Amino acid sequence: MPHSSYVLTLDCPNRPGIVAAVATAIFEQGGNILEAQQYDDTQSHRFLARIVLDHPRDALDPAALRAVLAAVAARFDMRWALRDRAQRHRVLLMVSKFDHCLADILYRWRLGELPMEIAAIVSNHPRETHERLDFAGVPFHHLPVTRDNKAAQEAALLQLVEETGSELVVLARYMQVLSDDLAGQLAGRCINIHHSFLPGFKGARPYHQAHARGVKLIGATAHYVTADLDEGPIIEQDVERISHHDTPDDLVRQGRDIERRVLSRALLWHLEGRVLLNGARTVVFRD
Amino acid sequence: MPHSSYVLTLDCPNRPGIVAAVATAIFEQGGNILEAQQYDDTQSHRFLARIVLDHPRDALDPAALRAVLAAVAARFDMRWALRDRAQRHRVLLMVSKFDHCLADILYRWRLGELPMEIAAIVSNHPRETHERLDFAGVPFHHLPVTRDNKAAQEAALLQLVEETGSELVVLARYMQVLSDDLAGQLAGRCINIHHSFLPGFKGARPYHQAHARGVKLIGATAHYVTADLDEGPIIEQDVERISHHDTPDDLVRQGRDIERRVLSRALLWHLEGRVLLNGARTVVFRD
Amino acid sequence: MPHSSYVLTLDCPNRPGIVAAVATAIFEQGGNILEAQQYDDTQSHRFLARIVLDHPRDALDPAALRAVLAAVAARFDMRWALRDRAQRHRVLLMVSKFDHCLADILYRWRLGELPMEIAAIVSNHPRETHERLDFAGVPFHHLPVTRDNKAAQEAALLQLVEETGSELVVLARYMQVLSDDLAGQLAGRCINIHHSFLPGFKGARPYHQAHARGVKLIGATAHYVTADLDEGPIIEQDVERISHHDTPDDLVRQGRDIERRVLSRALLWHLEGRVLLNGARTVVFRD
Amino acid sequence: MPHSSYVLTLDCPNRPGIVAAVATAIFEQGGNILEAQQYDDTQSHRFLARIVLDHPRDALDPAALRAVLAAVAARFDMRWALRDRAQRHRVLLMVSKFDHCLADILYRWRLGELPMEIAAIVSNHPRETHERLDFAGVPFHHLPVTRDNKAAQEAALLQLVEETGSELVVLARYMQVLSDDLAGQLAGRCINIHHSFLPGFKGARPYHQAHARGVKLIGATAHYVTADLDEGPIIEQDVERISHHDTPDDLVRQGRDIERRVLSRALLWHLEGRVLLNGARTVVFRD
Repeated sequence: MPHSSYVLTLDCPNRPGIVAAVATAIFEQGGNILEAQQYDDTQSHRFLARIVLDHPRDALDPAALRAVLAAVAARFDMRWALRDRAQRHRVLLMVSKFDHCLADILYRWRLGELPMEIAAIVSNHPRETHERLDFAGVPFHHLPVTRDNKAAQEAALLQLVEETGSELVVLARYMQVLSDDLAGQLAGRCINIHHSFLPGFKGARPYHQAHARGVKLIGATAHYVTADLDEGPIIEQDVERISHHDTPDDLVRQGRDIERRVLSRALLWHLEGRVLLNGARTVVFRD
Repeated sequence: MPHSSYVLTLDCPNRPGIVAAVATAIFEQGGNILEAQQYDDTQSHRFLARIVLDHPRDALDPAALRAVLAAVAARFDMRWALRDRAQRHRVLLMVSKFDHCLADILYRWRLGELPMEIAAIVSNHPRETHERLDFAGVPFHHLPVTRDNKAAQEAALLQLVEETGSELVVLARYMQVLSDDLAGQLAGRCINIHHSFLPGFKGARPYHQAHARGVKLIGATAHYVTADLDEGPIIEQDVERISHHDTPDDLVRQGRDIERRVLSRALLWHLEGRVLLNGARTVVFRD
Repeated sequence: MPHSSYVLTLDCPNRPGIVAAVATAIFEQGGNILEAQQYDDTQSHRFLARIVLDHPRDALDPAALRAVLAAVAARFDMRWALRDRAQRHRVLLMVSKFDHCLADILYRWRLGELPMEIAAIVSNHPRETHERLDFAGVPFHHLPVTRDNKAAQEAALLQLVEETGSELVVLARYMQVLSDDLAGQLAGRCINIHHSFLPGFKGARPYHQAHARGVKLIGATAHYVTADLDEGPIIEQDVERISHHDTPDDLVRQGRDIERRVLSRALLWHLEGRVLLNGARTVVFRD
Repeated sequence: MPHSSYVLTLDCPNRPGIVAAVATAIFEQGGNILEAQQYDDTQSHRFLARIVLDHPRDALDPAALRAVLAAVAARFDMRWALRDRAQRHRVLLMVSKFDHCLADILYRWRLGELPMEIAAIVSNHPRETHERLDFAGVPFHHLPVTRDNKAAQEAALLQLVEETGSELVVLARYMQVLSDDLAGQLAGRCINIHHSFLPGFKGARPYHQAHARGVKLIGATAHYVTADLDEGPIIEQDVERISHHDTPDDLVRQGRDIERRVLSRALLWHLEGRVLLNGARTVVFRD
């Protein structure tokens, strides 16, 4: 890519003229729209959009573009963000004992599938637990947690998020429930993978619950963390067929595959600016 | 098929020698095993199996086979059933206003996909509601239900089941909750289609619930009816991907497709003797 | 819908300013954009888009909108079409012996899933072949075909297409190969369902080919008809898992389900203006 | 598992009494059947089965069991194999530049998902190409291949297979075509992953072929290697939905996920004795 490109995300109350105003602003600043997706929520009457643009003749001045977009945004009461795609998200990865999601994210990141910088890896288990994983020089932090030190551990975590400039926290099978306070502070910038097809089988040991109920498909759910456990806005879900032959341990094994692909998809889409919050739900602009 | 074939289903406490005893009994009576599936439940220590057999030389005497099987069953404390495949199940179909599942079942039945006799079609709506459907001469019964006549309506229904010799009742989007008493009487011989991926979204308007929660896949569940609403043993489930663009009405439309194929599969597998109850779950011998 | 809405489809060589020009034209005529999807083909450098618009204040004059769109189109060398959604497509359905796809289309149409008028149903088999189907008053034409009368039969068919004002022909398991000439005349307005996952298993008896090859999934393909048999632009495909237990007849049965849903999806998307030709491929704006 | 268990696989011409004879032989030797799957090929009239057995009272003498099975096998003209599950398969893994399948296999192996010993890892690229992978002490062999040294390279490879006692060779995106001679020598014990949904897109650059054809799903195929390139018996296939937005590079990325799960499933099933050759096809006893 010889010149930079940008992702513009926006949402506002719906009324005629938004697309025309935004597209005209971009065009007049020398921008070219590469991708555009929009969604009119006919229940909430909000309009959400994602626009990818570049500037073929290197004529675009980001500051000027921001200025005209700010004017459009003021007219339409619009929340918006413009991000240079070259500016990679800084991401903090958290894990507990089971590190298959972490391993998968690390491998994809090294292949170039995930456009991010990994600011830090945090586990409530020591480095030895993950000895088979090569962290490629990413700083590792062991933040053990007990009933007694939870507040202190979360304070240390939050400080780490701030010190490292992390814009996103990924709970890659981090098996500790965040306090309401921490969940609130990370709202919209913390993705969790839950090992069930929500809203089925909330809480602990979902594969054992699924086995006991005799379902014929199991799944996993990636969602933004909120204070309500397992109730945050869903980003992605997927399932696989199982059979009566599968024991709870078989479900755990098959579930690892589902968890890995669901979390990595949700992470990628977040990094590409494809996921917009829409109340308790998400809009995911996949194409 | 020039000669008859049989489906043997059985379950008993697990211990060595069951397969040998059953296979030897069949062989000594001139039978040939065409298909055999088995499942050892290592939690409940029960053994379940389904065996399809024919008798290539027309030498098999069903009464003699039943006698030796009864002896084997007594030895192993076995519940068992032997059914001539030529003896078609008699099935009573129930429907309310939305008749897409009924239409699908009728079409498949006419094509020969579903080996059954339809004993009757029952609706709580009049024949006109289903005027676009050709019932092909199957008797239709309008059994309207109100808060006041529910007991009488269910009594009439149960009488119809008995008079028509119906072995199976299919609730093909019959939108009335059965009383505990009726559900109990039809235990193990009444299949319902619920329009959600259970255990998510029990109860009314599941597609609206799914939309409100923002799930990324919707599903349907075919299960045996029990007194616990939407809690019966699951026979089959399936899902389809949806997006934020889909309104509740879109989900209802897409759901019709899932419901149709989930219910028709569950019905076919029941008719072929592939579904065995195993406590609160089912064993489905698909191959 | 108290007022009409329109679907605008367009494609042109890609260059900056298209979205701004089109959106501004619509806005200035009092239109409101409800949905918009676009695709930049970075290989062919073409831009394709689909826009759904209404006019909240009933102020829109379609003739005026067409005039300004024509001016924009001239500037950008654009092919375009604007269609009032209230104007239903007229569709001619063709079938041979196996009528499961026809039955499915008729049922969906009656439910209101498919926004079209069925201009005629044509079979190379007599009405009795399809006696289980209620054609709901749609005119039926028996156009038998033999090696000798093929040219005459196709001429009769083409005349019927014209007389009935049919804009689309659906080959719903019509098992006759169209002549190059007819295929050419119906280019872009004739959808076929092929009973394999193309490009695998072209030609005759694809389920038998699939069985012989031992594939683990079977599929179906809906595509626009071209003179090259089974080579036309693909609109939709889907697959289902099979096993070694499945005989060719089992594949035929399972395939019916895949064919039905693939063809009905392709038909719906065509009717909604979601399918644009892009050389030998299609762009399908699903959301 | 306090005592050993065995996998018995067999195939023979089909006739009555096979199951009874085998099950009785096992029972009389003190064995207990844990799993049993069978398949009657009604076209070839062959019977294939897989039986998992243990011996609850530690009474089973493997040599005695082999002797009685040999007698049964002689009676029924049966090919058979009995394998102690504790005896892990020795597997040689081959790779070229793209090592995502290798990385996946190594990670699963370390988690205990794949019951095997890795005898060696062979690449036609040097160790540095795979520097991000921890080989966990498995011997690595760099066997570069050119047009001129191919025969010598294959001889070295075959010698390595023999010296390491490798029972299975896995071509984990090894991008060299094996000579007919080598393919023949490894028949039935060499699994390849092809990056298309065969029989579509044989040969080179299948994702680019798929993009050019405009298919709506892409896939991958794991198969036993034969002298006919991409024509060997298929073990497993899977697909994922793509869209017109996906470039060939996007397909390559998505394809990596499909390849990983298809190859790891095929490998696991082979290791568990679930895959039996049946002419040009396979029987896969999944449950």
